[in-house]
Amino acid sequence: MAYNLLKGKKGIVFGALNDKSIAWKVAERAHEEGAELVLTNAPVAMRMGEINKLAEQTNSQVIGADATNLDDLSNLLSQSMEIFGGKMDFILHSIGMSPNVRKKRSYDDLDYKYYSQSIDISAISFHKLLQTAKKMDAINEYGSVVALTYIAAQRTFYGYNDMAEAKSVLESIARSFGYIYGREKKVRINTVSQSPNITTAGGGIRGFDGLYDFSDRMAPLGNASSEECADYCVTLFSDLTRKITMQNLFNDGGFSSMGMSARVMGFYNRCLDNLLPDEW
Amino acid sequence: MAYNLLKGKKGIVFGALNDKSIAWKVAERAHEEGAELVLTNAPVAMRMGEINKLAEQTNSQVIGADATNLDDLSNLLSQSMEIFGGKMDFILHSIGMSPNVRKKRSYDDLDYKYYSQSIDISAISFHKLLQTAKKMDAINEYGSVVALTYIAAQRTFYGYNDMAEAKSVLESIARSFGYIYGREKKVRINTVSQSPNITTAGGGIRGFDGLYDFSDRMAPLGNASSEECADYCVTLFSDLTRKITMQNLFNDGGFSSMGMSARVMGFYNRCLDNLLPDEW
Amino acid sequence: MAYNLLKGKKGIVFGALNDKSIAWKVAERAHEEGAELVLTNAPVAMRMGEINKLAEQTNSQVIGADATNLDDLSNLLSQSMEIFGGKMDFILHSIGMSPNVRKKRSYDDLDYKYYSQSIDISAISFHKLLQTAKKMDAINEYGSVVALTYIAAQRTFYGYNDMAEAKSVLESIARSFGYIYGREKKVRINTVSQSPNITTAGGGIRGFDGLYDFSDRMAPLGNASSEECADYCVTLFSDLTRKITMQNLFNDGGFSSMGMSARVMGFYNRCLDNLLPDEW
Amino acid sequence: MAYNLLKGKKGIVFGALNDKSIAWKVAERAHEEGAELVLTNAPVAMRMGEINKLAEQTNSQVIGADATNLDDLSNLLSQSMEIFGGKMDFILHSIGMSPNVRKKRSYDDLDYKYYSQSIDISAISFHKLLQTAKKMDAINEYGSVVALTYIAAQRTFYGYNDMAEAKSVLESIARSFGYIYGREKKVRINTVSQSPNITTAGGGIRGFDGLYDFSDRMAPLGNASSEECADYCVTLFSDLTRKITMQNLFNDGGFSSMGMSARVMGFYNRCLDNLLPDEW
Repeated sequence: MAYNLLKGKKGIVFGALNDKSIAWKVAERAHEEGAELVLTNAPVAMRMGEINKLAEQTNSQVIGADATNLDDLSNLLSQSMEIFGGKMDFILHSIGMSPNVRKKRSYDDLDYKYYSQSIDISAISFHKLLQTAKKMDAINEYGSVVALTYIAAQRTFYGYNDMAEAKSVLESIARSFGYIYGREKKVRINTVSQSPNITTAGGGIRGFDGLYDFSDRMAPLGNASSEECADYCVTLFSDLTRKITMQNLFNDGGFSSMGMSARVMGFYNRCLDNLLPDEW
Repeated sequence: MAYNLLKGKKGIVFGALNDKSIAWKVAERAHEEGAELVLTNAPVAMRMGEINKLAEQTNSQVIGADATNLDDLSNLLSQSMEIFGGKMDFILHSIGMSPNVRKKRSYDDLDYKYYSQSIDISAISFHKLLQTAKKMDAINEYGSVVALTYIAAQRTFYGYNDMAEAKSVLESIARSFGYIYGREKKVRINTVSQSPNITTAGGGIRGFDGLYDFSDRMAPLGNASSEECADYCVTLFSDLTRKITMQNLFNDGGFSSMGMSARVMGFYNRCLDNLLPDEW
Repeated sequence: MAYNLLKGKKGIVFGALNDKSIAWKVAERAHEEGAELVLTNAPVAMRMGEINKLAEQTNSQVIGADATNLDDLSNLLSQSMEIFGGKMDFILHSIGMSPNVRKKRSYDDLDYKYYSQSIDISAISFHKLLQTAKKMDAINEYGSVVALTYIAAQRTFYGYNDMAEAKSVLESIARSFGYIYGREKKVRINTVSQSPNITTAGGGIRGFDGLYDFSDRMAPLGNASSEECADYCVTLFSDLTRKITMQNLFNDGGFSSMGMSARVMGFYNRCLDNLLPDEW
Repeated sequence: MAYNLLKGKKGIVFGALNDKSIAWKVAERAHEEGAELVLTNAPVAMRMGEINKLAEQTNSQVIGADATNLDDLSNLLSQSMEIFGGKMDFILHSIGMSPNVRKKRSYDDLDYKYYSQSIDISAISFHKLLQTAKKMDAINEYGSVVALTYIAAQRTFYGYNDMAEAKSVLESIARSFGYIYGREKKVRINTVSQSPNITTAGGGIRGFDGLYDFSDRMAPLGNASSEECADYCVTLFSDLTRKITMQNLFNDGGFSSMGMSARVMGFYNRCLDNLLPDEW
């Protein structure tokens, strides 16, 4: 169901790789709600992905950009403004990658060049985007920028590795830049902290399936899907949330506020009863 | 501008006293978005207020109820279900009152009967409402309940007095009951932590004007107005936020994430420079 | 090992029921560190407990007091000051009881008289103690007051029931009164949020054993014992923590900052693999 | 007054530049409490500083090390172990520097090479230290590592610039590595979030004096001094806090839990009354 919540609005969506990506769903929903879009991804990701299919479906243009490269970002924004015939209203940042995770370096044996890349790609790219946009005055007043994050920025999750620091930086940038962009141009900046999703990205993390099940049993409403994340992002891009800024917002079925659910505890206790003593 | 976000939805709004009340604005906006409403307030508040005007304007029914009284709540819910022809989809709880604040008892000289009343009226009423609703199965699946709160539940604000504890209880109930109502009926429960507003309610708090100015200068987007709070509540009642639950959500122009703004610091420094030494 | 950290200091310890109580261990350690003590408990708890043994061991006096009764508190403080020959330096509040938990009322079927008692006994008693102490000017400058709490004030734990609200109030009082007592008398007030302990008190909560095991596996250092809590309280009563106030401090082996540990995940995954499909 | 809290313990203190440094005070207090120390700083900082005076006073050795250089860290730890005749028990990390702040680049005009250096020097150095120490097995069981941080990791402070992200990374590392070092070697890792101090380091931040005054008026106990920070660190290095890990601990006179104090509000209101209308 569509409400025309984003009618007349223009925005850029980063990170739509394939139809499992949250960014893909956000683009679909934003389009349904009346937005005009530019899609972007790293050139290498675009080769692997199916972004052109999405572009066709949403009647969007695709512009490749390495989000760590200032020239690419500048080019992306100026081309987008040309396409839009003016400034834009919203941006989704959905970019995260850790070479340490990919190369299976454990957190107490990190490669520091990779570490720096994790932070640069997954977080500093967000600052570069915002700084470039502000310098070009590319976002309308009360525009809205959202970046996707994960609760590992607050609590330690086994296997999430140096992405914990990357997400901490990302959320800090949302606050720091949200203050400046807010006071000067009324632009709001928030992060959405999403349930684990079974995407290509999530697949790389050790023990992911068990974590997905655990989250789903812990959260009273279960994990939030990509579609539900897209619905939520639409509200944050709309004019109905104009004073929400510098916030980290959990879209997670309640997981973040849970300590222990009956479902997890029941499962856990059954395990305690059934596992053989010598397994301890 | 309206989007039909609440088309076909039914809800109860507590606490609309006059057109300065946030609840009043929420009722107006929910009506604009297509919702069918029942308005309620304490009988004594209804005598003082102009709720009938709002009822007429929003084509709603008014049912008086003391929110601390289980029979009143039960009657309110059953009458509402009769009016709606079934269960409801959303509820706004906007109730807060501290006899200690009214009687100007300072926080280190509280009257304990009043203290208990502050918590009972401002917070336990929320549990009573939820418990009664759940027992009567009065809320549809994925229904949404919102209570209004203030950041004094996290940080101490001079003059806010025992309302700090009342709001802490309120937010804790949103989590505790959000877990149970979520797992059993998919009902989500959140609190919205709103900027200070110049309402009849806020007027009772000592030094309120200065605080309003301070918040407004600290928040990069300034204080959120009642209208902006109503817009936000509409998104939380809609189907676009179905996995948001057990959260405390700040609608405050960024205040909650600020430590110090240039505007406050500049003002403050000018004061430091200008005030006579003997004032120190 | 003792350091004379509390040499010359005087304090009151609430809530030592038997040698499994955290308060018992705090009294022992404070005594070892050179403090002079008064022990107190509710008359009914004293009848069940062995507090006299502790009094003998720590060379302390015992004064019964119902912590919800202002006259009892006033009497306790004035008698203590007589014994001490002056004001005191620290107080431990370790009081918590929920009639709803005892009577096995579930959280969506609370008795509201019991609910009010849970909050009154477990939390408002803390305010009554502080207000009485401040009016009597019973605590020395830079004195230190600690109350024991649990992480259920931040996150929902199945079975913890209305104690979640009680602990929320307790922690809010520590902030609210910490501000006032701090600015006027330099007295600091904090809460210590402790791991689950196998005490008489903890025993009443449903599914407690599984929760104890879960916490212990989640926390990298395992659950904190009563003895370790006592050690920590000693540092908070000492002169070495004079600017720590209005804080909620986790003594929990790291549990509060964990989202998922390898030990829990490994155990959980083994269960996922081994439990029969029809158990799902 | 000394208690022998660190008798027999050995530790390394980073970042003692001169007698205004917190690290300087920590070294003095740790020495008084019976610890054996190695002092270290970047070679360039050592040339400017007076670290040899401190070494003499505390009977310590000085070993220069660039904390961003793995070889330097490895050399520092192995030399220290030689001096100590074995592993160490505690480490203080007090390192922070932002080239962007020094070069007066505003947060919306950052140099990205500097940005990366801010994070590398102020935060990744902490990971490098921990990873090197763990690989060399340089810290005894239940050893304690503390890094100094600031509340700008949680809330935005005008002028703190990219140090906000650096401190966010630092605090995230304390959690992430605290989990791993805790589960494997029982080593605990915490950050202490300290009041603003008038040190050489703090002096570089714009509007610092006003901020110092504001914090001091807001916090009921006033700002915590360097000496008070040193006292607190001593408790965290001691055996009395063995289950405290992965925490960010505020030593700030209550500032972090304040929203508005009477002192700030009174001052602020006097300004509102006295400043000429045309200044608005």
